[in-house]
Amino acid sequence: MVGPREVRQQIREGKWRQPTAGLAPGFVQTNLVILPRVLAFDFLLFAQRNPKPCPVIEVTDVGSPEPRRSAPGADLRTDVPKYCIYRDGQLAGEVTDLASVWRDDLVSFLLGCSFTFESALVQAGVPVRHIEEGRNVPMFITNIPCDPAGVFQGPLVVTMRPIPAALVARAIQITGRYPGVHGSPVHIGNPVEIGIWDLAKPDFGDAVTIRQGEVSVFWACGVTPQAVAMQARPPLMLTHAPGHMFITDLRNEELAAS
Amino acid sequence: MVGPREVRQQIREGKWRQPTAGLAPGFVQTNLVILPRVLAFDFLLFAQRNPKPCPVIEVTDVGSPEPRRSAPGADLRTDVPKYCIYRDGQLAGEVTDLASVWRDDLVSFLLGCSFTFESALVQAGVPVRHIEEGRNVPMFITNIPCDPAGVFQGPLVVTMRPIPAALVARAIQITGRYPGVHGSPVHIGNPVEIGIWDLAKPDFGDAVTIRQGEVSVFWACGVTPQAVAMQARPPLMLTHAPGHMFITDLRNEELAAS
Repeated sequence: MVGPREVRQQIREGKWRQPTAGLAPGFVQTNLVILPRVLAFDFLLFAQRNPKPCPVIEVTDVGSPEPRRSAPGADLRTDVPKYCIYRDGQLAGEVTDLASVWRDDLVSFLLGCSFTFESALVQAGVPVRHIEEGRNVPMFITNIPCDPAGVFQGPLVVTMRPIPAALVARAIQITGRYPGVHGSPVHIGNPVEIGIWDLAKPDFGDAVTIRQGEVSVFWACGVTPQAVAMQARPPLMLTHAPGHMFITDLRNEELAAS
Repeated sequence: MVGPREVRQQIREGKWRQPTAGLAPGFVQTNLVILPRVLAFDFLLFAQRNPKPCPVIEVTDVGSPEPRRSAPGADLRTDVPKYCIYRDGQLAGEVTDLASVWRDDLVSFLLGCSFTFESALVQAGVPVRHIEEGRNVPMFITNIPCDPAGVFQGPLVVTMRPIPAALVARAIQITGRYPGVHGSPVHIGNPVEIGIWDLAKPDFGDAVTIRQGEVSVFWACGVTPQAVAMQARPPLMLTHAPGHMFITDLRNEELAAS
């Protein structure tokens, strides 16, 4: 079994350019949002006020590309397989390292992603449909406003997983153990109430099969902070490319609530 | 029973100038630290990196004296019975309202205080010695460094409560349910290991009786962020006066982990 350091090394050397799902099993993978210092307080405050969509795993020191708490020795400029560069809120390019755009005033935010709780669900015998069907998780923009902070505001984005009715309580308990990666669901069973009119037409990702007797369960999604940041049109924002996450040295169990 | 709004009104009108312990039972009381915007990112990041001593209940919008999430309608300039004003890290005065020093660039941090978990301990039959003896909780500066953030750094300050050996596990479980107010202990049973040489000589607060068969249990203390902030010598810092807390509309149970 290859550990997170070895995987990051492969990525750094350009030997792995694919999505990271399934790599370094058991270790926490994160979303990455990098913003100039001048926006960092508002963004951290947004995360503090909206912990379900924005669970903070680590925030680096200003200008430092090393997440020294969750992955000492790693370099956030090179250790993600693919990055997106946004200028004034518009995608300006995709790159495989950030050397050419790095600045000393950048602050990096590592935010929890749902891989951690999905592996806990699977281990507990709760089916995760998009994994079974080999698709991307369906994501929807809701009518629930996030609690704004400074320049950052916008609606909550959620993921949907259909769960057999008898397993819903278990799915809530399991994901509730992981507040550091979105935690318990934000809504259960009535999509219209949160502004979702057609489960077959997700705003991002792929639709999945919902079987008879299954309940649609909605969790806060890490796309939220990225969408909200984009909407604020920052002069420069750097992120991981979708599915191409940063892999930390933290074990999934370290994120479980005591 | 008088609720938090009524108590804050009394305080605002100058009818209550005493410590707040025991007021509005069942409702969350908080520490208050107010800093200029220019230091707010570093301070919020310090809190994010040190959640046990710095559990964030709410951070106000820049310039706003209203904690609209935890106490809508309240005014942080008038609703605390006594405040301390620090200039360049030195106590410059004590006042009963902040009208004369308020500025539009101030950010207010409400941080959890141990009153919440102490009431849960008492309700569960775990004795809390300093309450029994009518004293202030004993506080000690440890040799454990906090994780620094920007200009903020310094040692962890802890409170000590002697617990009968048979009840230590219970005390850990109960306080662990409240990560929003310091959570589970940081150290149990061996004060020398964290740099505490004499339990009879606390750095702040009062010494309490330790009986035979009791274990000294140490929790992270809300004095930590205040001490750390003072050490950074900010041009202006406003805080509550010790024991004179801000009373929110949140119920203690709302802070319990699910």
